[in-house]
Amino acid sequence: MLAEFDLIRRYFTLPTHDVHQQGVALGIGDDAALLNPQPGRQLVVSVDTSVVDVHFPGDAPAEAIGHRALAVALSDLAAMGATSRWCVMALTLDQSQFADDNAADAWLSGYARGFATLAGRHATTLVGGDVTSGLLSIAVTVMGDVPNATALTRSGARPGDVIAVTGALGGGAGGLALWQQGERDSAHPLLERYLWPTPRLAAGEALREWATAAIDISDGLLADLGHLREASGVGARLSLEALPLAEGLEQALGPEAARQATLTGGDDYELLVTLPSAHVEKARQQLAMSGVPLHVIGECSDIPGVHGLSVQRYHGWQHFKGETP
Amino acid sequence: MLAEFDLIRRYFTLPTHDVHQQGVALGIGDDAALLNPQPGRQLVVSVDTSVVDVHFPGDAPAEAIGHRALAVALSDLAAMGATSRWCVMALTLDQSQFADDNAADAWLSGYARGFATLAGRHATTLVGGDVTSGLLSIAVTVMGDVPNATALTRSGARPGDVIAVTGALGGGAGGLALWQQGERDSAHPLLERYLWPTPRLAAGEALREWATAAIDISDGLLADLGHLREASGVGARLSLEALPLAEGLEQALGPEAARQATLTGGDDYELLVTLPSAHVEKARQQLAMSGVPLHVIGECSDIPGVHGLSVQRYHGWQHFKGETP
Repeated sequence: MLAEFDLIRRYFTLPTHDVHQQGVALGIGDDAALLNPQPGRQLVVSVDTSVVDVHFPGDAPAEAIGHRALAVALSDLAAMGATSRWCVMALTLDQSQFADDNAADAWLSGYARGFATLAGRHATTLVGGDVTSGLLSIAVTVMGDVPNATALTRSGARPGDVIAVTGALGGGAGGLALWQQGERDSAHPLLERYLWPTPRLAAGEALREWATAAIDISDGLLADLGHLREASGVGARLSLEALPLAEGLEQALGPEAARQATLTGGDDYELLVTLPSAHVEKARQQLAMSGVPLHVIGECSDIPGVHGLSVQRYHGWQHFKGETP
Repeated sequence: MLAEFDLIRRYFTLPTHDVHQQGVALGIGDDAALLNPQPGRQLVVSVDTSVVDVHFPGDAPAEAIGHRALAVALSDLAAMGATSRWCVMALTLDQSQFADDNAADAWLSGYARGFATLAGRHATTLVGGDVTSGLLSIAVTVMGDVPNATALTRSGARPGDVIAVTGALGGGAGGLALWQQGERDSAHPLLERYLWPTPRLAAGEALREWATAAIDISDGLLADLGHLREASGVGARLSLEALPLAEGLEQALGPEAARQATLTGGDDYELLVTLPSAHVEKARQQLAMSGVPLHVIGECSDIPGVHGLSVQRYHGWQHFKGETP
C-alpha cells in the first residue's frame, strides 16, 4: 500500500476546472485548507458517514461507493437550499480487502473517479482528506453557502402549506432489495437509484424561493416527515395515491411492498418540502427546467400526527398513526 | 442503544457559553448547520480521523478519547495560525464494546465531556454530528479562520531562518511506550502528553506575526520537518543538543531511546516553525505569556537534506540522511 501522503496526492488531487477552484486559496497538501467565503452569504455545513455493509454493500462498484458517500452528504446541503462549494473526506480503508497492490489501485482509482465526477458536477472542490486503516468507512463533510437568512430549514412549515416531494420514492429501498436478491445489472433503474443517488442541489436552490421548510428523505418519507412536523409543530394529511413511485418499483416488489417502500424505505435522497399552495405551479415549472418533477402529496394541518384517507391499509402505518407530532 | 437522533441530542447538544455561539446561526438539529463567517477572514478547514487501536488504545479513558480526537484535529488549525471556531464530528461506535446500556451511557458521557471541555477551552462550537455503527472511529472536521492572507503555511521557510519548536518533544511516543508497558496512572506526565495532547492554538496565533512557515508535529520531528522542507524547498541543520525533551522521558526510556523519541516519535502535537532570527526573542516573549516555551533547534539552509553535528549517532537518522529535500 502507498503511504498516506502519496495516496492522497495520487488519487485525490485530481485536476479540477478553474470554476471549481473559486474560493480555494489553498487546497490539499498543507495542514489545512484556506477558503474564501463570499460576503453576504452564510456557510452551510454537514457531515455524513457511510460504513461498509451498514450504508452500502462492500461488493458494490468502487465508483458507486465514492459517488454515494459524497451524494448522501450533498443531499443535506440540497435540503437547506445551499450551493455546494467544498468538501473534506475522511477515508478509512480496509487493506485486507485488496488481494494485491493492483487490486488496491483499481479500487482506489474507481472510488476517486466516482467521488470526483459527482464533485465536479456540483462545482464542489475536495479541499482536504485523511486516509486511515480500519473497517471501510467514509465520513464526508460538505460545505456550501446561501445568501444570508435564506436557507431552508425544517421548522418553517405552517398549517395549510402543501407537502410536496421531488422525483420519485421507494427506489432506494427497492434497489437495496434487488441487490440483496442478487441483481447486479447497474443499468436497472432501481439499482441505479440505490447505488447512484442524485443529490437535488439545483432543485433545493430553486425551492428556496418558494418553500417554507425542507428536509431530504434519507430515513424514509414518514420518518423524515416526522422530523419536519416536529420541528415545525404541524400535523400532516397525506394522499397515498399521490405518492410518486420509482420506475420499476411495482414490477419489482409488487403493489403492496412498493407502497410500503415509498412510505418507509430509506435512501431516496429526494427533497420533502412544504410551500403555500399559491407557489406550487411556479415551483413546479422552475424545477421542470432542470428535469426534476415536483409532486404534491398532501398538506400540513394543525391536527397533530399524520392522517390520510387510505393510509391505514398499509403495514408500517400503524407505527406512525399514534405518533405525537 | 439510543437511536441516533436521541443520542446526538442527549450527549452532544451540550450547553455552550454565549461566546461560543458567536457565528452560529443554526447548530445541531437540522439538515446542516448555518454559520456566519467574518468579513475579511479566510476559512481554515481540516479533517482528522482517529481509529481505535491505530491512533489510540481502545481501553483508554473515554474522556481522553473524546479530548484527543478533537485535539489532533485542532492541532492542524494551530499550525495555520488560525482561530478555531466550529467543528463537526462523525462518530462510529462499536456497540459490542458495551456490556449494557449503563456502560454505553457512562462511556458516551465521558467521551462527550472530554470533547466538550476541550472545545469550550478553545471557543469551538460543535455544529454537526453523525453517529453510525462499526469499528470505533472518530472523524473530526475543524473550521477556523484567519485574517485574509495571514495564515502560516509549510512553504514560507527561507535559508537562514531559525527552526524552532514549542513545548517539548518525545512525550507522545514516551507515553505510548509506557501505556503499552501497562502504566495506567494518568497523572504520569508522559501518559498525560500522550492521552491529553494540547493543541497549540494560542501559540499558533501569536506566531502568525513572526513565523515564515509552520507545521504541527504529529508524525515525528524529522518526518514533519521533511514536509516543511519539501514545501519550502530548503534544507535544515539541526542541533540535537537543543531538542527539548518531554518531562520524565529520559527516566522512562533511557537517554538513547529518549533522543530517538524526540526525532521520530509521533503524537507530540507541538508546532515546528521557521522564523527570521531577528524575531526569535519577540516570539519567545509572546509565547511565554501563555506559558508555552519556544526552543530554537536549528536553522534552514540551502543545502538539501538534514544535517547536524551529532545526529548521526542515532538510529532512525539513516532513514532521513539520504532523503531528497
